[in-house]
Amino acid sequence: MAMTFSVQDRRSGEALPGEFPVATRDDVNSAVAEAVSVFRSGALWPKRAALIRGIADGLEAHAEPIVTRYQAETALPEARARGELARTVGQLRMFAAMVEEGSWVRARIEQANSDRQPIPKPDLRAMLQPRGPVVVFGASNFALAFSTVGGDTASALAAGCPVIVKGHPAHPGTATLVSKVVLDACAALDLPEGVFALLHDEGYSVGEMLVDHPDVAAVGFTGSQRGGLALARRAQNREVPIPVFAEMGSVNPCFLLAERLASDPISLADALYGSLTMGVGQFCTNPGLVFLCGTEGATQFLGALSERMERADDGCMLTEGISKAYIAGVQDRSLVPGVETRVDPSGRLRPALHVTDEETFRSHPELQAEIFGPATLVVRCNHPVDVAEALEGQLTATLQGTDGDLALAVDLVRALERRVGRVLFNQWPTGLEVCPSTVHGGPFPATTDGGSTSVGTWAVERWCRFVSWQNAPQSLLPEELRDGNPKEIWRLVDGQFVQD
Amino acid sequence: MAMTFSVQDRRSGEALPGEFPVATRDDVNSAVAEAVSVFRSGALWPKRAALIRGIADGLEAHAEPIVTRYQAETALPEARARGELARTVGQLRMFAAMVEEGSWVRARIEQANSDRQPIPKPDLRAMLQPRGPVVVFGASNFALAFSTVGGDTASALAAGCPVIVKGHPAHPGTATLVSKVVLDACAALDLPEGVFALLHDEGYSVGEMLVDHPDVAAVGFTGSQRGGLALARRAQNREVPIPVFAEMGSVNPCFLLAERLASDPISLADALYGSLTMGVGQFCTNPGLVFLCGTEGATQFLGALSERMERADDGCMLTEGISKAYIAGVQDRSLVPGVETRVDPSGRLRPALHVTDEETFRSHPELQAEIFGPATLVVRCNHPVDVAEALEGQLTATLQGTDGDLALAVDLVRALERRVGRVLFNQWPTGLEVCPSTVHGGPFPATTDGGSTSVGTWAVERWCRFVSWQNAPQSLLPEELRDGNPKEIWRLVDGQFVQD
Repeated sequence: MAMTFSVQDRRSGEALPGEFPVATRDDVNSAVAEAVSVFRSGALWPKRAALIRGIADGLEAHAEPIVTRYQAETALPEARARGELARTVGQLRMFAAMVEEGSWVRARIEQANSDRQPIPKPDLRAMLQPRGPVVVFGASNFALAFSTVGGDTASALAAGCPVIVKGHPAHPGTATLVSKVVLDACAALDLPEGVFALLHDEGYSVGEMLVDHPDVAAVGFTGSQRGGLALARRAQNREVPIPVFAEMGSVNPCFLLAERLASDPISLADALYGSLTMGVGQFCTNPGLVFLCGTEGATQFLGALSERMERADDGCMLTEGISKAYIAGVQDRSLVPGVETRVDPSGRLRPALHVTDEETFRSHPELQAEIFGPATLVVRCNHPVDVAEALEGQLTATLQGTDGDLALAVDLVRALERRVGRVLFNQWPTGLEVCPSTVHGGPFPATTDGGSTSVGTWAVERWCRFVSWQNAPQSLLPEELRDGNPKEIWRLVDGQFVQD
Repeated sequence: MAMTFSVQDRRSGEALPGEFPVATRDDVNSAVAEAVSVFRSGALWPKRAALIRGIADGLEAHAEPIVTRYQAETALPEARARGELARTVGQLRMFAAMVEEGSWVRARIEQANSDRQPIPKPDLRAMLQPRGPVVVFGASNFALAFSTVGGDTASALAAGCPVIVKGHPAHPGTATLVSKVVLDACAALDLPEGVFALLHDEGYSVGEMLVDHPDVAAVGFTGSQRGGLALARRAQNREVPIPVFAEMGSVNPCFLLAERLASDPISLADALYGSLTMGVGQFCTNPGLVFLCGTEGATQFLGALSERMERADDGCMLTEGISKAYIAGVQDRSLVPGVETRVDPSGRLRPALHVTDEETFRSHPELQAEIFGPATLVVRCNHPVDVAEALEGQLTATLQGTDGDLALAVDLVRALERRVGRVLFNQWPTGLEVCPSTVHGGPFPATTDGGSTSVGTWAVERWCRFVSWQNAPQSLLPEELRDGNPKEIWRLVDGQFVQD
């Protein structure tokens, strides 16, 4: 008999409907075999855009049950559920439009020249091609936008890769509803089984079987550092190693520069509080580290921030594990010598504020560890460039400064550019814009791969590799590389960008 | 007292002038510290193109001593030395032109829209940025084009990364002459120490120290599978893992399709012989595996190939280690049951030909291992698509076929596209064209990273990562992202490719 599990309403503790089967080794093997079969058949490639649009339309058509289940499984409010669904739909349509436009494949053509000396020049053409079946691990904190058909899945389908999702055990009902939308969209296009599969597991073994499977080509993951590193190591120890693109969170340092801090301490505290506590602080872009780069205004800033935190209601976090880790993380930080606990949540799911000085921060690397939730560490800072150079890799860094502050901050900006994926000026890191210019990545340990992004159209390239064709007959070339440019895409032809 | 080593003329065995210092840990630390200092200073970025052009000019100006020493250290003939120097100069100028043109940074701009609902759209701009100091391992078989200032170094400098080269111990004299050209080019531009360094070692410890150094950001390697895998594993086990882009060779399967084999057996044998024995077979693109996809013509083909091989002179290989590995590899292959030794070099550095059937090939995975040198394995093949699907990742695959053959080979071509970096039609894999469309990569074990290329302009992206700027003042943006497009590069602005 198959093992199953069910989940409770995070808000009430009541049992939610649904028994979710724990995938077996046979389930894993057959999901991968079907994915390989689809990949080899080439059936997905011409239908990518239609499929992705079909999924987006299906999510909108089935929004109500998804939004209801999402709230029950995450304890997040309706506005967040609807906002995240809209973002997920928007991401899908962004990738569909990218596929329809077509230039993302980066087609390049060098035409033959038989007269070239000392040797003739061959005809050489190249473009991105899909790697093969991709495994996606759903994230705890974005049951829609980073899960079943979130950015990893959408970008992998756009690349032409079949996807197998290992659903997050905290929201199997949401995952199942979304999965049905995806499978219906596949069926409507007569796409074979194997384009997409959702597998459930309460533990780690299904994920491990998937990462170990010789026919899996790449892995996408959003979650904890511990989880991401374990998968990355596992994938490196395969007989044929495969890439794991793991986004593992960040403390997202914010530098409050002197003149701005002196002139705006209260509005800075208000805005930071909003960014820090949104969604009970459960964002990988949460501002968990704040450097006060001046003294004037510091007292008012800390006072205003403390006051808002003290007034906060208790929150409900995504899982029991996250709740316990938050409380433990805050307690551990309180014990670090030289760290003052300014706002103590006292073992409850409320905001936490610690304050320290630069020397303590630099001599305790554990203070750079993320506490997932509404906790932040404020550091009184005299040498922001040195501090920036000593930071671990981050998804984001934020500068809050007047024009005068920023004019003096060139070295700090350059240092941060070398440590992070996104540098913000007078805005806050939560609320990521999803567009072609998005970079949601950063040097290790923000991600396993330091060079890519998991959000925005560039995310598609993680699932691709460069392939070239030398002296190929026209009929054997992909359409994107044929003479006459039948797909009407931008191509680099003999060194010139052209679209004709 | 410093340890040193010297080398002998590969042709005569006579001592060559020059004592090369084995780098110490202090040498490694100071080379990396200087590279970090240059990287943080930003001094390299505006002078990249001038530096790369200066190096190319310097190589041409100092060609004679380099060509002379190259021949002595490699036993390769003068024409090869001059050809490889010209390729190296050509690669450098290709990267310089790429930097001057500037669009390679992939600039993207999304402009702010404060009226957007439900939330305003921020200004978001992104482009590629250099990762940091890069370590390059010189290759044994290309003392110029894949060594001191070969493709890895040229592409890393183009990306804005300082480079530390661990010279190959077989050609330290060539490396030193080339290094002097690079350092002179740096000095002529007032570039600080640390843009480039060459470190020598006869063994592995200098390379290990470099890969372990916390301030090294990435590694380029061309060489054996054993060496590449050891470095990749080491880099993954660092506290902060870094990418190793290792190109580890390939057997480069060639499929001789039925009609072509029947009609052209002799010219196929001639051409294969030329590709196989060029440079004593010491190329990662050497055609070490040949599938006969028909029976008619097979006897003539094997007869002609054997005859040419039997007539060959003894060769001189790059190192003693390579010579011994070649002889041992050929002997091991002769012992595989079901493999016929058709041309036996009898323990000498001469071409080797083995013949087997498809079943033996598929049941002995060791027959896919590369024998570095002029050895090839011919497989009588009835199911080319199945064989192709079972191949390890390869740098290249070649189809030799008439129009009729190729029209029937669609499934084979599609299968090969999924296993290799470059698919050739009626040409041979040696003699790689270096241009924007070049892909010299392929799935593991051809490379550690399956998605990149080590040759051609795309090679620059290995040393880069995406960075974005949100709501940045114009003065703090890189010039490539400023309003008005001062660098006149192609950019994706609000979804449109534009150059104005």
